[in-house]
Amino acid sequence: MRKILVVGAGKSTSYLLDYFLDKSDKELLHLTIGDINPDAIAENIRNHSACTVLRLDIFKEDERIQAIQEADIVVSMLPARFHIEVAKDCITFEKHLVTASYVSDEIRALNETAISKGLIFMNEIGLDPGIDHMSAMQVIDRIRDKGGKMLLFESFTGGLVAPESDDNLWNYKFTWNPRNVVVAGQGGTAKFIQEGTYKYIPYHRLFRRTEFFNIEGYGRFEGYANRDSLDYREAYGLQDVLTLYRGTMRRVGFSKAWNMFIQLGMTDDSYTIENSEGMSYRDFVNLFLPYSPTDSVELKTRHYLKIDQDDSMWEKLVELNLFDATKTIPLKEGTPAQMLQYVLEDSWTLGDEDKDMIVMYHKFGYELNGQNHQIDSNMVVIGEDRSHTAMAKTVGLPVAIATLLILNKKITQPGVQIPISKEVYEPILRELENYGILFKEYDVPYLGYNPDSAPDK
Amino acid sequence: MRKILVVGAGKSTSYLLDYFLDKSDKELLHLTIGDINPDAIAENIRNHSACTVLRLDIFKEDERIQAIQEADIVVSMLPARFHIEVAKDCITFEKHLVTASYVSDEIRALNETAISKGLIFMNEIGLDPGIDHMSAMQVIDRIRDKGGKMLLFESFTGGLVAPESDDNLWNYKFTWNPRNVVVAGQGGTAKFIQEGTYKYIPYHRLFRRTEFFNIEGYGRFEGYANRDSLDYREAYGLQDVLTLYRGTMRRVGFSKAWNMFIQLGMTDDSYTIENSEGMSYRDFVNLFLPYSPTDSVELKTRHYLKIDQDDSMWEKLVELNLFDATKTIPLKEGTPAQMLQYVLEDSWTLGDEDKDMIVMYHKFGYELNGQNHQIDSNMVVIGEDRSHTAMAKTVGLPVAIATLLILNKKITQPGVQIPISKEVYEPILRELENYGILFKEYDVPYLGYNPDSAPDK
Repeated sequence: MRKILVVGAGKSTSYLLDYFLDKSDKELLHLTIGDINPDAIAENIRNHSACTVLRLDIFKEDERIQAIQEADIVVSMLPARFHIEVAKDCITFEKHLVTASYVSDEIRALNETAISKGLIFMNEIGLDPGIDHMSAMQVIDRIRDKGGKMLLFESFTGGLVAPESDDNLWNYKFTWNPRNVVVAGQGGTAKFIQEGTYKYIPYHRLFRRTEFFNIEGYGRFEGYANRDSLDYREAYGLQDVLTLYRGTMRRVGFSKAWNMFIQLGMTDDSYTIENSEGMSYRDFVNLFLPYSPTDSVELKTRHYLKIDQDDSMWEKLVELNLFDATKTIPLKEGTPAQMLQYVLEDSWTLGDEDKDMIVMYHKFGYELNGQNHQIDSNMVVIGEDRSHTAMAKTVGLPVAIATLLILNKKITQPGVQIPISKEVYEPILRELENYGILFKEYDVPYLGYNPDSAPDK
Repeated sequence: MRKILVVGAGKSTSYLLDYFLDKSDKELLHLTIGDINPDAIAENIRNHSACTVLRLDIFKEDERIQAIQEADIVVSMLPARFHIEVAKDCITFEKHLVTASYVSDEIRALNETAISKGLIFMNEIGLDPGIDHMSAMQVIDRIRDKGGKMLLFESFTGGLVAPESDDNLWNYKFTWNPRNVVVAGQGGTAKFIQEGTYKYIPYHRLFRRTEFFNIEGYGRFEGYANRDSLDYREAYGLQDVLTLYRGTMRRVGFSKAWNMFIQLGMTDDSYTIENSEGMSYRDFVNLFLPYSPTDSVELKTRHYLKIDQDDSMWEKLVELNLFDATKTIPLKEGTPAQMLQYVLEDSWTLGDEDKDMIVMYHKFGYELNGQNHQIDSNMVVIGEDRSHTAMAKTVGLPVAIATLLILNKKITQPGVQIPISKEVYEPILRELENYGILFKEYDVPYLGYNPDSAPDK
């Protein structure tokens, strides 16, 4: 029996846990789940013969150490800031560690010790980061192996609502942490490279500088730039690339409409509204509009945002009940961002029957034998139901597969790492295909950056 | 002989020092100037018989203590963050202290000790803060004395170029710290109250929400909101006022044009541009524009900012040589704000013959005997020459007058304070009139907030 400890069994872990239990007989696995709130774990998992559930407070050192000591490998699905406690114990008791989170400086500092002890600390092995790294490196390595030189790399991911559940004007519902959506793009200017030139977009213009994509069978999407486009330049070996751009995908029109909230100042999370408790949606909007003794909040909004009578932007605001004077926000001393989140959750929460959808889109431009080429690849995953979401699937399965590959010594390179080596991404991507997580590739003409906005010649 | 120590003799101190020396005979004053760079002090001051100049590094405790011990009163014209060192010694050696800076928390904490020792720590007694407090409280107290109830208070100050030196399309030159102009409005959402409603303006809309003023003989000005409109609510006793708004004055059109830089992202001071050194003005602009293989920086700028062919906004950009590919920025790893400042200083530095101008505009709305009234008051001060600027005059003279009033025991209330009591503002405002610093008052119809943007009835 090989003992797997999963710490933290939140909503993204359904597929992860199922994977281990489905393979428990064949692979001789025993799963221990440590969670602060074990009662929330589904009954079919809790009662599985290969599963033990512990009430575990990871800040109680003795509980944590005991659980880790007994495991052969540890999977931490805790919020990213808590991984370090688990990671230090994994060093002490010589256990491998797998997480889906970004490598923090604290975790990175453990690299040499991990290597000297032969431990694998695999991070960023969920969806984004995770599947994005693996699927990108697979194509990049293939291009290099045949002698190509990378010119352009763009990569976009989006967590959206599935087409069959897409029934609002924004073509959007919250399928993940709503707060991240409300404050997206804040905390730093977006930086990237286009055709060899550095480019910077301030937050208040970010959602107006979108790029478009078509995905066969799913129609049109758009992407806005992430803050961190340049972060993986070295890891991917793209120091000389002319265009490097990472972003977030939405349905067409979302970003332009979202920009209305930014223009109003409603996404600000840096100060609190004194009298927020019980404020109506309408009064909330009016906080950001000029005073007028006679004009309505509606007209002031139209004027301020320059929304014409026939502009569908308007219907998007009305759909959210923004001008309703009877609906109120219960938050005490809320920030504008928190108040907006409340208003949006009122409209954008997934219904019981709703399904989510994950989309990912890569562009690889390269030169081979003096000619420019481009490969576009994309992935679409639709959720099964409310607990078996596409998000849980695409985050959880790569973590699970990597864990078993480490146990089975198919992944052997020790150290703090992300999944960019062939040893890691090849078997994982191959197995993900069995679960319907796969990329379609298209050879397209090389057009450089953003062909849709290129001028007529 | 009464001994006055002035610490820090920067460019705002010409009138201050002249005032003391002019009165040295009659008032039996001896002036000691302590500065890190005494050679920069004008010769006529250095050689004055009533003046001693010391090389003083205020971080050298022994030098500082000795200078303070020998004085009867201390005036600190240092940058605000350095006052605390001086203030603590003033407590120890029981000296009065005068500064033109905002009261910091550290200085405020000395209040009780100052009172127990009978010491006057007078702060915010320059122009803004300073003359604004005094001139406002004089009118507010008068309204209250006759039984009026304050409904509205607005106050705007601007440091501008004098009409006779106003020769660029922006109607603006730097007359004070350029950096403060470039980052103005950053660091927090503007908050104020209009007709009883809280209002919030995000930075990227701040310069489009201006209010207009006419000043007899000087034409039209505009004002944008300061971050701190609500800060003096209690000090002024305006807790129940319906409208409270403080702002900065510019010539009409400046703010809308300035907003172009904000929209581009050029005022951002939160990150550095890697390859800034030697970058041309043109390439600097292009950092913030979408990539295009064929279009010019000019057309991209027009398109991005929606500048029509006949819009004078365009000429304002051209006047700054923004599209010049030969002019370069020498800053190493500059922030966008630092780089923009460099470009602007190239055009907006005061010439040898240029004069500056200070404008201040207050509005006081009040109810008296069931009727609403309004008083508008304004002040205009024009500089004499490059060293005797309107800024130096309006900052330095209130400091100097207050210092002498304290020495002469005309101001007697001890403690850490700002000039909002009659004992302080009345004699100072009266004496300032002799120097041409005075307000004109107008009884105008009460229109509530911002009559220019009020809708037709």
